[in-house]
Amino acid sequence: VKLFYEGKAKRVYGTENLNEVEIEFKNSLTAFNALKKGEFDQKGAVNLSISEILFAQLEKAKIKTHFVRKISENRIRALQVQIIPLEVVVRNRIAGSLAKKMGLEEGGELPFPVVEFYYKSDELQDPFLNDDQIYALKLADQNEVSNLKKQVLEINKVLKPLFQNIGIALVDFKVEFGKTPAGEIILADEISPDCARLWDLKSGEKMDKDRFRRDLGQVKEMYEEVLRRLKTV
Amino acid sequence: VKLFYEGKAKRVYGTENLNEVEIEFKNSLTAFNALKKGEFDQKGAVNLSISEILFAQLEKAKIKTHFVRKISENRIRALQVQIIPLEVVVRNRIAGSLAKKMGLEEGGELPFPVVEFYYKSDELQDPFLNDDQIYALKLADQNEVSNLKKQVLEINKVLKPLFQNIGIALVDFKVEFGKTPAGEIILADEISPDCARLWDLKSGEKMDKDRFRRDLGQVKEMYEEVLRRLKTV
Repeated sequence: VKLFYEGKAKRVYGTENLNEVEIEFKNSLTAFNALKKGEFDQKGAVNLSISEILFAQLEKAKIKTHFVRKISENRIRALQVQIIPLEVVVRNRIAGSLAKKMGLEEGGELPFPVVEFYYKSDELQDPFLNDDQIYALKLADQNEVSNLKKQVLEINKVLKPLFQNIGIALVDFKVEFGKTPAGEIILADEISPDCARLWDLKSGEKMDKDRFRRDLGQVKEMYEEVLRRLKTV
Repeated sequence: VKLFYEGKAKRVYGTENLNEVEIEFKNSLTAFNALKKGEFDQKGAVNLSISEILFAQLEKAKIKTHFVRKISENRIRALQVQIIPLEVVVRNRIAGSLAKKMGLEEGGELPFPVVEFYYKSDELQDPFLNDDQIYALKLADQNEVSNLKKQVLEINKVLKPLFQNIGIALVDFKVEFGKTPAGEIILADEISPDCARLWDLKSGEKMDKDRFRRDLGQVKEMYEEVLRRLKTV
C-alpha cells in the first residue's frame, strides 16, 4: 500500500481502486501549529467513530462527504479528492482566536454563524484570509467560495441541533473540502473534538482539543464522552 | 480651543462651529503599533500638503472628503465626523503584511485591487477582519461595508493613475472614513506616505513610511519628493 500523504493526525494510502483512498486516524494530538505534541491511546479510533456518526447524519441531510466505509477501528475508505487548501471555520459563539484578537470573553453567542477561511499551510501557520485575498491569490474562485460557504452553513444547521440534543454546545468547528475528479466539492477530512469546540451545556466544561491545548486534563475521557453521547443519537 | 482627541500623528480640536473641527498634523512618526517612534521637522506640514492635493483631486472626481480648508502649514479645518472604527486598505500589489503572511515576495501585481478591513484599536493591534466578523461584531452593517468598498475602489481609481503620472507606483494605501451628523459616510483622516506604499517606478525605491519602519534613511527627503512631484499634477 502506498502512503500518499502524512499529516499531523492522519495518513492517507492509495488503494487498488484509483477513486478511493484509505485514511488512517493517528493517535497523535498537536496544537499551536504542532509546537505542542501529545497523544492518547485509542484517540484515532474515537475520532474515527465520531466522524463516522456525524458524516452519516450529514449524508442523511443530503450533504455529500468523502466517507465510504469503515475498514478497521482506525481506518476508513474514502473517496479520493483533491483537498482545497482552505480551512473553513464556522463560529456560533465567540471563542479561540476570535476572542483573543478582539479582546472579548469566550462564550458570547454570535447573532449569526460566522464563516472564516484560513489558508492551509503549516509553514505559514494557516494565515486568515478574506474573500478578496482568496480570489486574488487564486486559492479558490468566487463560485467555489460561495459553494464552501453554503455547504458549511448547511453542515452547521445539521450539527448544531444534533449536539444541542446531547447536551453539547457546538461553539465552532473547522472542516476541509475536496474536489472529486468530476469537479464536485464535497466534505472531506474529519469532524471531531480535534477540530471543533464542544462545551457541555450544563457545566460549561470543554469537551474538545482545548483540554489538551490548555492542559485541562481528562482529554481522553472527554473525547470518549462525546462519542458515548453521539451513539445515543 | 478644546482638544477632542490626540492620536499618534494628529490632534483634533473643537471650533466655534459645531460641524467643524481643526486637525493638527504632528511631526511624529510611529510604526509597529507605536513600538517604534520617530519624527522629522516639517513632517506634519508635508503630509498635510500631500493630503490637501490628493483630497482636491478626489473632490474633483466627486468623492466627498472631510477637508474644508487649510488654516496654517500644519492645520486644517475639517468636517466633524464620527470615525468608523475600520481601517480600509486597498492593495494593487503584494507587499507588507500580505506578503509576510503568505510568504510571497513584495511587488507582485494583483489581478484586481484587494480590499481589506482592520479593526481600529491600538490596544488590540488593529486585528484583520473579514466581512462576517464585521457584521457579527456590529462594527458596521452590510450597507456600510458595501459603501466603504465602493468608495475605496473609486479612490484607488483616481489615485493609482495620478501617482503613475508622476512616476510612482501606488502599491497599497489605508484610509479611514467618518459619518457626518446627516449619516453620510465620507473620506476622513489623511492620505500620505504615512499610510500608503509608494514606490518610484524607475528605481523601485520606497518613498513612504517603510523607509522609517525598515531604517532605510532619507525619510524626510522622500516624503518631500512625493510632495514635489504631486505639485506638478
